[in-house]
Amino acid sequence: MTIESFLPPHRTLMGPGPSDVSPRVLQALSRPTIGHLDPLFIQMMDELKLLLKYAFQTENEFTIAVSAPGSAGMEACFTNLIEPGDKVAVCRNGVFGERMRENVVRAGGIAVVIDDAWGAPVSVEKVAAALESDPQIKLLAFVHAETSTGALSNAEALGWLAKQHNVLTIVDAVTSLGGVALKVDEWQLDAVYSGSQKCLSCVPGLSPLTFSPRAIEKIQSRSTPIQSWFLDQSLVLGYWSGEGKRSYHHTAPVNSLYALHEALLLLKTEGLENAWQRHQQMHQLLKVGLEKLGFSFVVEPDYRLPQLNAVYVPEHIDEAQVRATLLQEYNLEIGAGLGDLAGKAWRIGLMGYGARKENVALCLQALQNALSRP
Amino acid sequence: MTIESFLPPHRTLMGPGPSDVSPRVLQALSRPTIGHLDPLFIQMMDELKLLLKYAFQTENEFTIAVSAPGSAGMEACFTNLIEPGDKVAVCRNGVFGERMRENVVRAGGIAVVIDDAWGAPVSVEKVAAALESDPQIKLLAFVHAETSTGALSNAEALGWLAKQHNVLTIVDAVTSLGGVALKVDEWQLDAVYSGSQKCLSCVPGLSPLTFSPRAIEKIQSRSTPIQSWFLDQSLVLGYWSGEGKRSYHHTAPVNSLYALHEALLLLKTEGLENAWQRHQQMHQLLKVGLEKLGFSFVVEPDYRLPQLNAVYVPEHIDEAQVRATLLQEYNLEIGAGLGDLAGKAWRIGLMGYGARKENVALCLQALQNALSRP
Repeated sequence: MTIESFLPPHRTLMGPGPSDVSPRVLQALSRPTIGHLDPLFIQMMDELKLLLKYAFQTENEFTIAVSAPGSAGMEACFTNLIEPGDKVAVCRNGVFGERMRENVVRAGGIAVVIDDAWGAPVSVEKVAAALESDPQIKLLAFVHAETSTGALSNAEALGWLAKQHNVLTIVDAVTSLGGVALKVDEWQLDAVYSGSQKCLSCVPGLSPLTFSPRAIEKIQSRSTPIQSWFLDQSLVLGYWSGEGKRSYHHTAPVNSLYALHEALLLLKTEGLENAWQRHQQMHQLLKVGLEKLGFSFVVEPDYRLPQLNAVYVPEHIDEAQVRATLLQEYNLEIGAGLGDLAGKAWRIGLMGYGARKENVALCLQALQNALSRP
Repeated sequence: MTIESFLPPHRTLMGPGPSDVSPRVLQALSRPTIGHLDPLFIQMMDELKLLLKYAFQTENEFTIAVSAPGSAGMEACFTNLIEPGDKVAVCRNGVFGERMRENVVRAGGIAVVIDDAWGAPVSVEKVAAALESDPQIKLLAFVHAETSTGALSNAEALGWLAKQHNVLTIVDAVTSLGGVALKVDEWQLDAVYSGSQKCLSCVPGLSPLTFSPRAIEKIQSRSTPIQSWFLDQSLVLGYWSGEGKRSYHHTAPVNSLYALHEALLLLKTEGLENAWQRHQQMHQLLKVGLEKLGFSFVVEPDYRLPQLNAVYVPEHIDEAQVRATLLQEYNLEIGAGLGDLAGKAWRIGLMGYGARKENVALCLQALQNALSRP
């Protein structure tokens, strides 16, 4: 087998992520690697923290990027905040709620699962009932924007509810950050993680993460050690901390952090509210077009994510074949259904740099062509 | 605070890593992002597996890159192979042996520590005695090339010794892979992890990893679940496996994997033996020059790593000031001492693309200039 340099084609990425990456971000990615303890790199990290705080709308001092994908950011929250035996209410309305439950169990916690239908948001009433009926619950975990269904949950109401019960929140904001409103401080959320490759339109591989002072307090008052060394945020803090000398924990993914810095800078330049609005506008365009083509949405309008459009696949269609046609003939990627929706739905992403008119137009025209095939 | 695009200077990286990255690798890094389930990406990953097998000199089917830095590769080994209560012999002759011990404890294992002096290799005799005296030891963990001291241990002898005692090996090859001989199959090593940013001269953020069939067997016969979801290699295998449909586990760091593919292709084109020889030749040049300048090495010649040269800092020298001068005036990074050697030694790396005559020349001349300052 002769192996040559890999020259990927230029795809338009309208799946559930990774999303289209801005040329400016790719350019930043390939700048010369410098040392992870270089004073100039440390300065860049300080700026990155400020940019992350802006994106999360938080003043949390502990706001960093985990050196691994969103799943590791998720695990960082559970493994740091749960001590063996801790009861954790886990809301499950899609793939990522179930992954949270799995994380609770592996961290030695006791999961109290609150189920909602796939495509529905997390029921605030059910969560209220669960927290009232069991005062031993210490943490509430939920997904803000379910990437498997396209449903948006009310993180604000859930955040306030948790606060009333003196319960800490762990929030999956992988698909929400940068695409819809997320206000960590105002909503009083405690541990929030995201991914670089969704509405931030950075390359995959990093997980933005923020911990409230309450979350840090819980970590510092642990009586048992954190089971992961790599994800032990009390150690990671020594490297990301703004005060004094940085202590080596692991080698930071230098170039990926350049890219995240650039992606967040683009977000800040546009303005968060403008970015949220742009996602909404592009979603409206796509929605009108998809409905004209006869598609119906998995999620009700009130809870529908603009950045992740799950639509049912028309009957009698070979859904894998259509996706293959889009990819091969139009270099267009849309997402397959996941979990309960596998084979039944498509997921069309309008994330970050991908939420542009040209992408909407391409998607609608290519879909129409592919579906009208004999 | 006004934040602008980050434009790093062009440094020559001669520390303990990240090492100089070839322009070809940076170019590969910035190619267009495609989906992590794209058929072309899957093909690229299949090639990447072949290239990793070549670099590790193994036929192990489970040979992948963990989507996170070397520390996560280390943790992947311990968390997958250790069950609570397992006894693990851990060789400690530097920072990374101690990190291994920490990993054993966090994974619920019982660490039997075998200490050697910083700068010395792991004593095969001591390990033999430990394995003979305690038949309950199930695993042997050691660092092949200690990045904190520059000492090379005899992985071949340790591998065979472990096999005689029916003990599995976990080997840290972070700094050895690509720089000195490492023959996973011939030496019968079981779980071997590395880093992308040392002698492979790829950007930091990935950890090449290989498990022998015996290691896989141990994982598959576990009676307790793996405590990490992100690092659970039985789940990761579903994504990297060559057979049939790839199942989604986490979003792969697409662009970083392009870069690793390119870096490994460069290694294959040069040839492993040639790369080992080049590291040795550049080390000889550097050694002669350093000795002329009056430096002495931390490690005896027999165990000295060509790619990581730890030398004692001359007395009456402000070592941090000299490193700062090299960085500011020559854009040259050399490494500080770590752990027991902090403030006492420098670590000069000649890794991968960085092991070139021009780097040796620059380093010697710049050091001479900086040290001759009044």
